[in-house]
Amino acid sequence: MGCIGDEEALREAALLSLPGVESVTPVLKPYKLAAREFTPQPTVVKAGDTPGAAVGGVALVVAAGPCAVEDQAMMLETARAVRGAGATLLRGGAFKPRTSPYAFQGLGEVGLQLLREAGTETGLPVVTEVMDTRQVELVAEYADVLQVGARNMSNFALLAELGRVDRPVLLKRGLSATLRELLMAAEYVMAQGNHQVILCERGIRTFETSARNTLDVSAIPILHRETHLPVMVDPSHAAGRSDLVAPLAWAAVAAGADGLLVEVHPCPQQALSDGEQSLTPGAFGELMQSLRPFALAAGRVLAAPEDDERNSARGVS
Amino acid sequence: MGCIGDEEALREAALLSLPGVESVTPVLKPYKLAAREFTPQPTVVKAGDTPGAAVGGVALVVAAGPCAVEDQAMMLETARAVRGAGATLLRGGAFKPRTSPYAFQGLGEVGLQLLREAGTETGLPVVTEVMDTRQVELVAEYADVLQVGARNMSNFALLAELGRVDRPVLLKRGLSATLRELLMAAEYVMAQGNHQVILCERGIRTFETSARNTLDVSAIPILHRETHLPVMVDPSHAAGRSDLVAPLAWAAVAAGADGLLVEVHPCPQQALSDGEQSLTPGAFGELMQSLRPFALAAGRVLAAPEDDERNSARGVS
Amino acid sequence: MGCIGDEEALREAALLSLPGVESVTPVLKPYKLAAREFTPQPTVVKAGDTPGAAVGGVALVVAAGPCAVEDQAMMLETARAVRGAGATLLRGGAFKPRTSPYAFQGLGEVGLQLLREAGTETGLPVVTEVMDTRQVELVAEYADVLQVGARNMSNFALLAELGRVDRPVLLKRGLSATLRELLMAAEYVMAQGNHQVILCERGIRTFETSARNTLDVSAIPILHRETHLPVMVDPSHAAGRSDLVAPLAWAAVAAGADGLLVEVHPCPQQALSDGEQSLTPGAFGELMQSLRPFALAAGRVLAAPEDDERNSARGVS
Amino acid sequence: MGCIGDEEALREAALLSLPGVESVTPVLKPYKLAAREFTPQPTVVKAGDTPGAAVGGVALVVAAGPCAVEDQAMMLETARAVRGAGATLLRGGAFKPRTSPYAFQGLGEVGLQLLREAGTETGLPVVTEVMDTRQVELVAEYADVLQVGARNMSNFALLAELGRVDRPVLLKRGLSATLRELLMAAEYVMAQGNHQVILCERGIRTFETSARNTLDVSAIPILHRETHLPVMVDPSHAAGRSDLVAPLAWAAVAAGADGLLVEVHPCPQQALSDGEQSLTPGAFGELMQSLRPFALAAGRVLAAPEDDERNSARGVS
Repeated sequence: MGCIGDEEALREAALLSLPGVESVTPVLKPYKLAAREFTPQPTVVKAGDTPGAAVGGVALVVAAGPCAVEDQAMMLETARAVRGAGATLLRGGAFKPRTSPYAFQGLGEVGLQLLREAGTETGLPVVTEVMDTRQVELVAEYADVLQVGARNMSNFALLAELGRVDRPVLLKRGLSATLRELLMAAEYVMAQGNHQVILCERGIRTFETSARNTLDVSAIPILHRETHLPVMVDPSHAAGRSDLVAPLAWAAVAAGADGLLVEVHPCPQQALSDGEQSLTPGAFGELMQSLRPFALAAGRVLAAPEDDERNSARGVS
Repeated sequence: MGCIGDEEALREAALLSLPGVESVTPVLKPYKLAAREFTPQPTVVKAGDTPGAAVGGVALVVAAGPCAVEDQAMMLETARAVRGAGATLLRGGAFKPRTSPYAFQGLGEVGLQLLREAGTETGLPVVTEVMDTRQVELVAEYADVLQVGARNMSNFALLAELGRVDRPVLLKRGLSATLRELLMAAEYVMAQGNHQVILCERGIRTFETSARNTLDVSAIPILHRETHLPVMVDPSHAAGRSDLVAPLAWAAVAAGADGLLVEVHPCPQQALSDGEQSLTPGAFGELMQSLRPFALAAGRVLAAPEDDERNSARGVS
Repeated sequence: MGCIGDEEALREAALLSLPGVESVTPVLKPYKLAAREFTPQPTVVKAGDTPGAAVGGVALVVAAGPCAVEDQAMMLETARAVRGAGATLLRGGAFKPRTSPYAFQGLGEVGLQLLREAGTETGLPVVTEVMDTRQVELVAEYADVLQVGARNMSNFALLAELGRVDRPVLLKRGLSATLRELLMAAEYVMAQGNHQVILCERGIRTFETSARNTLDVSAIPILHRETHLPVMVDPSHAAGRSDLVAPLAWAAVAAGADGLLVEVHPCPQQALSDGEQSLTPGAFGELMQSLRPFALAAGRVLAAPEDDERNSARGVS
Repeated sequence: MGCIGDEEALREAALLSLPGVESVTPVLKPYKLAAREFTPQPTVVKAGDTPGAAVGGVALVVAAGPCAVEDQAMMLETARAVRGAGATLLRGGAFKPRTSPYAFQGLGEVGLQLLREAGTETGLPVVTEVMDTRQVELVAEYADVLQVGARNMSNFALLAELGRVDRPVLLKRGLSATLRELLMAAEYVMAQGNHQVILCERGIRTFETSARNTLDVSAIPILHRETHLPVMVDPSHAAGRSDLVAPLAWAAVAAGADGLLVEVHPCPQQALSDGEQSLTPGAFGELMQSLRPFALAAGRVLAAPEDDERNSARGVS
C-alpha cells in the first residue's frame, strides 16, 4: 500500500499496531506522484487534440513562436512559418513576466485571442504562460497548455490552482531550483488531481556570463530516471543569444529531451521582448532540418501533425 | 524633469524637438522610484503605529516570532517572550510556502487571527507572508506589514497587487536574485503607488552546503548605496541552523542592516516547520543582549516600543 | 600590425606620434594567441604520432582509460579494451590531485612507466596529468600529452612551464572558471611558445547536487566561436556517476565537441579513485557504438588509428 | 587511540581481531589534524616574532599593504603608513597570479627584498604569496608568513611543499572551494608536519556581480566550530571596490574573524594591480579607528606591536 500525504501526520499514527501490518517503510522520494518508482511507464501528455502534440512518446515535439504576442499579423505570419517548418505546437506570451515594471507586459486577453486565432488557423495547439491565480480560468479558455514560468516555479498558490484545471501544465525549472525542487513543484500540481505535467529545463543561474543562463543538460537524463513525466528543453532562454540556440537544441535532443521550446520572430530586431535570442523563420527552418539526424540518433522521429502512427508510447529508457 | 515609464516608448518620441529641451539623458538605473539618486534621504517605513516599529531610522528594529503560527498558546507565549527580550515587531506565518505539498501549509485565516490577537495583546505590530494575489485583501485586514517570500520575489502579479494596498511590504530577496532584480521587484510595488517597501537579505543559493544559504552581507552596503529603502536581514533563513544565527546577526548589524528578522519558537524541536533554525526564547534574549554593543558600534540603538525619541530619521550614511 | 604584451606598457608609449601610425586600436579580446579573430582556421593538435590522435579535425577523438594507473595488469587490460572499442588515445593518472592527503596519490614515475608501456603495446599515444612545475620534464619524457587538471587551471607557474615544452597540453576548465579565464589560461601556455593547447570542459560547480558537477554544454559552441583551439569534453568528471556518462557524451558531440575523455576501469567497484563514474570495458564499447550516429549528425566521424584519410582539417564552422 | 592516514588501508586491517580492541570507529571528519574535535583549544599562530603578530588570540590582527610591491619608495611609504595606523603585519606581492600573462607579474626576488626591507624598517613581519614549489625556499628566506592564493588552494604539490618549511602558511579559500575542501587543503600542509596554518576567507564566486566576489561571512563561525586554526578575512578581494571594504571588515570582525588582510596603496589610481579595491593610507587610518568598537563588541582588542599582554590565548568560544 502506498500512502500519500504529510508524513508528519504519520508519526503519531500507530500503523504498526494495525492488524496485517508487518512494517512501515517511508517512501524516500518526497515526490510520490511524480516518481518513476511508482509509475515506471513514461507519461505521454496530450498537449492538444492533434496527434503531433503528444509529448513523451517516440516523437520529438517542437513548440515554436514569439516570446510575446504583438499583433495579429506577426502572430499569424509566425504561426504559418513554424507550422511550415515542422513545429506541432504554437507558443506565444500574452501575460509577460518582465524584470522591469516599465517594460512591455503583454497584450493580456487580446493576446490570448490572437494566439488562439493563429492556432486555429494553422491547426496548432497553443501554449501560453499564466502568472496569476486569478487568470487561470481565463487562460484555460484560450490555451491548450498552461505554462508556468521559471520565476513562478515556486509560486505554490499558482501551482495548486493549476492542479484543479483540466489542461496540461508546462512547468519551467526555476533559475536556481534543484531538480528535486522542480519535481516537488510538479507534485504540487499533481497532488490537486492534474497529472498532465510537462517539465522544462531552461538554463540555471551560475557564475558564467557568456550565455544568459547555463543549460543543465544533465537534468534531462536525471529527470528521466527520477520521473515518468516528459521533459522539454528551452534552448532559447538558456542561451539568450540566437547563435547558440541550434547547438543547445542538438545537445538537448541527444541527451534525451522529449521536446523543445523555441522562440521565433519574423523580425527579431523589432521584437518587443527577447529579440536577441529569437530565430528568424528562416533560421528556424534550418534548425528543424538539422534536428532530424540527432533525433534519429536518439531513437526519435520529429513529430508531425499529419502522422499519428509514429507517436505511440515508447518503452522505458 | 524625470520621466517614468517604458523607455521603449521614448525612442519614438521626438523629445529633442520640443521647445526648451536641450538634451535627453536616459536614467541609467532601471529602478527609478527605488533609486537613491532620486531620493537621497533614507526612507523610514512605519511598520505599524508603534514608535519602535519604524524601520530605516537610527533605531535597529528586530522582528521575531515563530516560522508558522501553530496555536493560540504558543503564539501568545512567543509574543510575550520576544516582546520581553526587546523585539518591536512580531512575525509569524499563516500561509506557508513549503517545498512539499504534503508538509504543513499554515493555519490560513485562523493563523492570521491568532497572530493578530498576540500582536494586540503585546502591543507589537505584526508581519506575515502573503502568497496569492487573492489573499492580499484578507491578509491586509490582519497584518501591519505584508511579507513577500523569497520564492515569490519575481511573482510580478503579486508585487503589483501589493502596490495597490495601504500596507508596508517586506520584500525578501529571491534565492538567486541579483540586487538589481531585487530593486526592480521593489519598483514593481512602488510603480503602483505603494512606496513603503522594506528590502530583506536572507541568503542566496551557492555551491556551499554547510549553511542552508550563503548570507550575502555585502548586499547591505550595496543596497544602501543604491536605494533609499531600508534593508533588513533574516539570519535565521540564511543559516538554516540555530548556532549560526547570532554571528550572522552581529555581522548584519555591523554591515549596516536597519533591522533583523529572527525565528523564535518556544520549543524548536517540536516546531511544525523550520525548527532547526529557531532560537528558544532564552537564546533570543541572549542574542538581543549581545546585539547592543554591535548596534552602538554601528551608530545605532536597539529600537524600543516605549521610547520614540531615539527613532528619528538619521542622515545619509 | 598586431602587438602582444602587457597593455599597461603601451599607455606610456607614444605610438600615435610614430611616423605612419594613424590610429591605435586596442584588441578587445585579452586572449590574442588563442583568439579566433586572429587565427580563423581551427587548429588541429597532434596528440601523438598516430593519425587517429589529431584533435580538432573532422574526426572525433576519444581518450579513454582509468582515473589512476594502479598496476601493470589493469593498465594493459584497460588499454587493450579501449583500443578495441575504438579509443585512439589512452589516459591514466600517475600523479593524482586528491582532495584528501590521505587518499591514494598515484604511483608517480612507476605509474608513468606502466602507462607508457600500455600505450606502446597498444599503439595509443598517452595523456597524463602533471601537477608540479618540477615534474614537467619527467612527465614529458613519458607522455604524449600533458594534462592540466581543473584544480590547477590557474596555477600560472605550471602553465608557463608547460609553455616551454614540446608537448601538447590538455587544459581542463577550473570548477568555477569563466570561459574567458579558461582562454586566458591557454594564453599563458601559448605566450611561452607552445601553441598546442586542447581545451577541456569537465563540468562547473553550481548549486545542483544530483550530478557531481554541471556540464556546461554551451561552453562548446561559445569556445568554438572565441578560439581556434580544439575543445574536448570529459563527461565522466562532470557526471560523477556512470549512468550519466553516455547521455552527456552524446550531448557533447551534438554540441560540437572535438573529442571526449572517458574513464574506463576493468572493475569500477575496486578502483582506487573515481570508481563510481568509471565505465566497465563493456559499457565503454556500447558507448562507442552509440556515439557513431551522433558524430555523423554533427558532421564528424569517429577517429580510427588505421585511417588517416578521414582526419584532415575541416573548415571553419 | 586516534589513527591518521589513508582509510582505504584500514579496510584490510583486521583491527577488530587485535586483543583489547572492542570497536573501530571511523573519525567522520576527513580532516583530522585541523579538526577541533581533536584539538579543542584554538591555535595561536605566531606570524613573526613580534607580539602583535600572533593570530588566533584575543587580539585582532590586521595585515595591510599593497597588492604588489612596485618600488622601494612606495613600499616604505605604505609600510610606515599602515604601521602608524595600527597594522601589525605587512603584506605585499612579489610574485603575482594575474589572469592575463601580459599583466604585471610582480618584481620577483627584487620585490621580496623591498618587502623585507620595509618590514625590517618598520618592525612589521611580512606576508607574501608563493606560487611555485620551486620558489618556496626563496620566499621563505624573505618572508615571515607564506601565503597561498585562492587560485592555488588546490595546488596540492605546493601545499605539501609548504608543509615541509618552518614558516606559518596563510591559506586562502579557493573561489569555489567548500569549507570542507579548505580544511582538507590545510590538512595537506599539516600532514607534512607544518601545523602553523591560518585560514583566510576572501569571497566566493556566485551569480551576483555587484561586488567582485561574495564574502561568505558564515564561513567564519562555521570554521571556528570545525577547526582550531585561526581565521582571517580579506575584505579587499571579496569586495573588489574600495567603498565596500569597511562594512565588510566590520561584518567580519563581528562574526568572529581573528584578523583582516587589507590592501592599501599610496595612490590607488596608479596601482599596477587591484587599484580599484585599495584604500588610501588615510582611508585605512579611518578604517582602523572604526574597527575598535566592533572588536570590543566581539570580545577582542586590536593587536598592537608594543603590548604583548593583551595577546594571550583566549578560551574556546
